[in-house]
Amino acid sequence: MSDVSMENTVRERLMSAATELFTTRGYAATSVREIVEAAGVTKPALYYHFKSKEGIYLAILDKILKVVDETFDTRSLSAGPVRQRIETLFLRIYEVFEGHMATVRFLNSVFWGPAQGAPAFDFETFHIRLTEIVRGIVAEGIATGEIRGSDPQPTVMALMAVLSFAMDLTLAHPELGVGKPEFLQVLDAVFKGVSAPAAPNQESAR
Amino acid sequence: MSDVSMENTVRERLMSAATELFTTRGYAATSVREIVEAAGVTKPALYYHFKSKEGIYLAILDKILKVVDETFDTRSLSAGPVRQRIETLFLRIYEVFEGHMATVRFLNSVFWGPAQGAPAFDFETFHIRLTEIVRGIVAEGIATGEIRGSDPQPTVMALMAVLSFAMDLTLAHPELGVGKPEFLQVLDAVFKGVSAPAAPNQESAR
Repeated sequence: MSDVSMENTVRERLMSAATELFTTRGYAATSVREIVEAAGVTKPALYYHFKSKEGIYLAILDKILKVVDETFDTRSLSAGPVRQRIETLFLRIYEVFEGHMATVRFLNSVFWGPAQGAPAFDFETFHIRLTEIVRGIVAEGIATGEIRGSDPQPTVMALMAVLSFAMDLTLAHPELGVGKPEFLQVLDAVFKGVSAPAAPNQESAR
Repeated sequence: MSDVSMENTVRERLMSAATELFTTRGYAATSVREIVEAAGVTKPALYYHFKSKEGIYLAILDKILKVVDETFDTRSLSAGPVRQRIETLFLRIYEVFEGHMATVRFLNSVFWGPAQGAPAFDFETFHIRLTEIVRGIVAEGIATGEIRGSDPQPTVMALMAVLSFAMDLTLAHPELGVGKPEFLQVLDAVFKGVSAPAAPNQESAR
């Protein structure tokens, strides 16, 4: 293992331990000593990598923002049927979610939990950016006749609801956790409609 | 005003102040003194009504459980088309939500926020009970041919997603808050399907 990757490991262990402690105990109640003990490193290692408790908190948020930036990169979504583009985008987001559940749980605890003197973070960005991307694809689908109706808003909301609920349910009730196949089935229900006989027979179940 | 309703007012002011403080500052960081000051009453009033900080916390949760019990009473939902029964149930829940937003925000902060030494509360009950009610109605709809497919699960998930997302979005982004008409439009999108030409023309938009 090179020095660089060893340093990365220390950094990642510190971020992982801090994520867990901030989520379960809260930012205010977590000390630098507890973070370094949980990570199995020394205090100077934390100060070297992050300068302070605030520094490691911001580094965790910064890392997830970078991941979100890559995930929301829609250049690869510019072709193909609208339904397929939305499924591709949502599956990509769902995979990122599954790979970063501890961080998403941490974000939820910061967003919904009591204020604790932690640095501010702009949560709106996530929701607004993703909504705009989905709205853009849905608007194209309305223009091409792939999406029903003339107002993208109810469709955007219905699709965002499925993504949001699948992630929340998996976080909140891991034992009921929604896997990718079930997630796609719920999306399928929304695309086809749950009322019978709304199903267009020419579009077979996936 | 009778003595009974004056007592109720003191009780409600204390519960309202405690809900706000528990949500924004957290259970652990909130003192009895802060609650009585925010409510504009004396400490003995809190001790008389709730005995302790733990007592007022449990009273807030107990009150919302009673409201949920009444809301989930499905005796009035036993007749009519399945779609109408689901809309009636969901609108009733949404109205209760709109009337108890501070308490729902408090529940979210307890559920997602860090543990703070507050008494345990069984959150699963909410989700599981409502899911079972919706599943029962959807299963009937499959039996009568009103709901598409043979597996109720994707339909149940899609419907629950819309309800959950509308409430979360309203709590999280009050400026984007979802009103009842928009909520019904999103449900309509899920019943009819967002893919064109999935819309059954015999079922007109509401």
